Amino acid sequence: MAAPVTPPSVVKLPDAWFVACASKALKRQPLAITLQGTPLVLFRAADGAPAALLDRCPHRNIPLSMGKVVDGQLECGYHGWCFDALGQCRKVPGLVEGGAVGLKSQAAEAYPALEQEGFVWVYSTPGAAPASAPYRFPHLDEAGYSTVRHEFLVDATVHAVVENALDVPHTAFLHGGLFRTPEKKNEIEVVVRRFATHAEAEYLGEPRPSGIAGRLLAPGGGVVQHFDRFLLPSIAQVEYRLGPKSHLLTTSLMTPVSDFVTRVFAVVTFRLPLPAWLVKPFLTPIGLRIFAQDAVVLKAQTEAIGRFGGERFTSTELDVLGHEVWRLLKQASTGEAAGEPQEHRVKMRT
Amino acid sequence: MAAPVTPPSVVKLPDAWFVACASKALKRQPLAITLQGTPLVLFRAADGAPAALLDRCPHRNIPLSMGKVVDGQLECGYHGWCFDALGQCRKVPGLVEGGAVGLKSQAAEAYPALEQEGFVWVYSTPGAAPASAPYRFPHLDEAGYSTVRHEFLVDATVHAVVENALDVPHTAFLHGGLFRTPEKKNEIEVVVRRFATHAEAEYLGEPRPSGIAGRLLAPGGGVVQHFDRFLLPSIAQVEYRLGPKSHLLTTSLMTPVSDFVTRVFAVVTFRLPLPAWLVKPFLTPIGLRIFAQDAVVLKAQTEAIGRFGGERFTSTELDVLGHEVWRLLKQASTGEAAGEPQEHRVKMRT
Amino acid sequence: MAAPVTPPSVVKLPDAWFVACASKALKRQPLAITLQGTPLVLFRAADGAPAALLDRCPHRNIPLSMGKVVDGQLECGYHGWCFDALGQCRKVPGLVEGGAVGLKSQAAEAYPALEQEGFVWVYSTPGAAPASAPYRFPHLDEAGYSTVRHEFLVDATVHAVVENALDVPHTAFLHGGLFRTPEKKNEIEVVVRRFATHAEAEYLGEPRPSGIAGRLLAPGGGVVQHFDRFLLPSIAQVEYRLGPKSHLLTTSLMTPVSDFVTRVFAVVTFRLPLPAWLVKPFLTPIGLRIFAQDAVVLKAQTEAIGRFGGERFTSTELDVLGHEVWRLLKQASTGEAAGEPQEHRVKMRT
Repeated sequence: MAAPVTPPSVVKLPDAWFVACASKALKRQPLAITLQGTPLVLFRAADGAPAALLDRCPHRNIPLSMGKVVDGQLECGYHGWCFDALGQCRKVPGLVEGGAVGLKSQAAEAYPALEQEGFVWVYSTPGAAPASAPYRFPHLDEAGYSTVRHEFLVDATVHAVVENALDVPHTAFLHGGLFRTPEKKNEIEVVVRRFATHAEAEYLGEPRPSGIAGRLLAPGGGVVQHFDRFLLPSIAQVEYRLGPKSHLLTTSLMTPVSDFVTRVFAVVTFRLPLPAWLVKPFLTPIGLRIFAQDAVVLKAQTEAIGRFGGERFTSTELDVLGHEVWRLLKQASTGEAAGEPQEHRVKMRT
Repeated sequence: MAAPVTPPSVVKLPDAWFVACASKALKRQPLAITLQGTPLVLFRAADGAPAALLDRCPHRNIPLSMGKVVDGQLECGYHGWCFDALGQCRKVPGLVEGGAVGLKSQAAEAYPALEQEGFVWVYSTPGAAPASAPYRFPHLDEAGYSTVRHEFLVDATVHAVVENALDVPHTAFLHGGLFRTPEKKNEIEVVVRRFATHAEAEYLGEPRPSGIAGRLLAPGGGVVQHFDRFLLPSIAQVEYRLGPKSHLLTTSLMTPVSDFVTRVFAVVTFRLPLPAWLVKPFLTPIGLRIFAQDAVVLKAQTEAIGRFGGERFTSTELDVLGHEVWRLLKQASTGEAAGEPQEHRVKMRT
Repeated sequence: MAAPVTPPSVVKLPDAWFVACASKALKRQPLAITLQGTPLVLFRAADGAPAALLDRCPHRNIPLSMGKVVDGQLECGYHGWCFDALGQCRKVPGLVEGGAVGLKSQAAEAYPALEQEGFVWVYSTPGAAPASAPYRFPHLDEAGYSTVRHEFLVDATVHAVVENALDVPHTAFLHGGLFRTPEKKNEIEVVVRRFATHAEAEYLGEPRPSGIAGRLLAPGGGVVQHFDRFLLPSIAQVEYRLGPKSHLLTTSLMTPVSDFVTRVFAVVTFRLPLPAWLVKPFLTPIGLRIFAQDAVVLKAQTEAIGRFGGERFTSTELDVLGHEVWRLLKQASTGEAAGEPQEHRVKMRT
């Protein structure tokens, strides 16, 4: 009946910066992470700069993350081979003078890594010279703005997590009362724009969301400016403005751990009429509750796709960004050229 | 050495009624089941009649069983799409007036379902018009008869569970003392008959089984009438009669959950010289003990078949029905025509 | 970069004796083991001699290890079929006089088995007539020698476990302080010899190992004689001599349970200046600690090889025996002829 089952919406993106971990998570000892299915080990060189190597000793394939950092080099826990931030082997204990150390075959593949705005970023192509810098968070250190960060692990593809983060209709339903409410009184218009490396949906004439969160953000009600954005490689951004006083920007960086596991680094930056110390104790539990509800649904979606051997999605005009996100991800994974910018409009009841 | 390993005795049967659950297990909320590897969701429409849909929302593939029943329709827990008993989509929250609802692509595949004699039955081919009604249990509500029901989950194929249920030689050995005893004093004759959609074994001249259960059924001893039957799609029936007063009929409906998991719905209907309230407290624990012993052996058989990559069975003339059961299951799965009825006789010591 | 990923170093060896279990582990009831991925059942015939059959009843494929031993025969727990030490079926309960018992199709495949020096040995080719006897342990019952045995299970290939057991450089590093110490003051020479069915490394001019174990073995210091040997099919032997008084021989028989699980039967035979009752309480915990450290590393190696889909090893001249061990294992698995004996020398700092 209807469309056949298609493979899950999974891509691997080359030449892209992803958040590997929060800066504070990478301390003195090595840290094992997985990026797009590839095990990597992070460590800090003598100058404190982060380094990322393939998590496999070239000698006998023990994970380097089981070793320790000695004088800014990563020492394997089995035979004590030492590697620098570029993955070059600097020491093979037991070799006599003149023994060959530092051969290419003894090197661990290195991935570009750097630290920026509180995160350790890793480039997804080893040995490459990154053509660009990682994403920068708007208003992060601007006067009057406060920022909260949270980190989540979700059992779903990057595409599913991004679509969920930018999907409006489910918020009234799944998160009923927390953010929007199920009664749909307002018919609004959505402008959907597609660009070469990002897409956005602008919601026109949307009244202040009626749930608890909406009342906190704009106690006096009113019409909000609301943008949902996807930016390659895997950034989902939701922006609300209400007059000159209220501004809330949630930027979620999705790191593809493996095909069906995504780590979400959420950065919430806001300026509100109420002081931040008053708002945070309310916003945080609401955000965590919303996330927990989404995580349950996303995991169930992943499991169902696995059980049925693939996806069989049907969409309506309300699914404004999911298709654009997938098109951008596919283009980025294949290197296919982006088409011309486009725009279309959709009506929605909220 | 000897016969090569063959694939496990697994079939998928189209156009067949299977018990999905006991009537009382399907209450106000949806119930997830699996039939022949396919996840289904059961729910009750406004009139209380059971409905069965593929357990996957056509929109974003969340299991519909995570949702809830609202006004006799099944509402998905993610975006609130609603489905009726035929799987048609009746509501997409957020769509403006004139938005397309009820499209074929928005429908969830529906499986014929009905309620009969205390069970919810589901037909194994979606969208089909069943040519026949589900099996009816003999003597179920007849005066003088009592009935006990039990439900079991076994890690084995339907074929293995049916063969076990209809196999006499193992009862003396595996269930020694409970039903038959290992000393084999009697040589009896078995008539094996094969028909188009069922097979049976009639045991001639069999003395009352000598274990505890036999003594309960026929305290005075004597010769019993004993039939073991297999009826397509997956019904195993054991019938004992001892004169006009004792009659015991165990009908087990095997529901193929997946290739190697079978749910057994056992219906034991009996008329005995002793009153039912006196017999039940003895028969039930004996039946549960027998089942538990069989479940251990069947699971071990399944695991061994998995470890060895297939079956390598050897049979003797004592394996009177296993081969007939497999032939009928194969015919039903391929639609191959049944051969002429046949009959042969076997001698056995019990 | 460098060598491509290659399949894991896994072999299956025909026509070889492996230790199945310690003699004392095989008591009155059957014992399930797995040899090179094949489930076997061990039991003792009426005369106490061990027997090994494929762990699958030829009738309905239940594991025979679920049954019991009756009069020196193994009785299946499902229908009571009985098998002798050669796997022949001797009884099918329920068959009438003249029923066919003992047919070839009813036999369970038998593997040659025998008991020697405290172990039950099984030959890896069923139905074969072994051309040789199992390995005999040197000095096992010699006057002045004591023996300690231990049994370990490791999540790694036989090749990985053997290489680890015969690898010197990691001892200073992974087991730092217990056996050797990381400071590498001495440059010594290693003679590596390859023969048709074994290989060895002789360490020339090696001072007494400086860790705790070394001090126990040779309180007075001095130069040791040290041999590391691999003997087909899967024996790793480490021998130390210090003058006429100290002699320590660790022989580890590796039984390939499955591709990535190896059971190690270690036999430590020694003659030391100190009495055995004084040495054992020290040597045993040190040996167990060393083994536990190796087991962690080997398991991590196996997991990494699995994650990366194969091996990508780089070696130096310090990896003196790993390559020879692999060559011998490959020859034994394919039946390829061995080349001429060879010898080469390597320098190493210890």
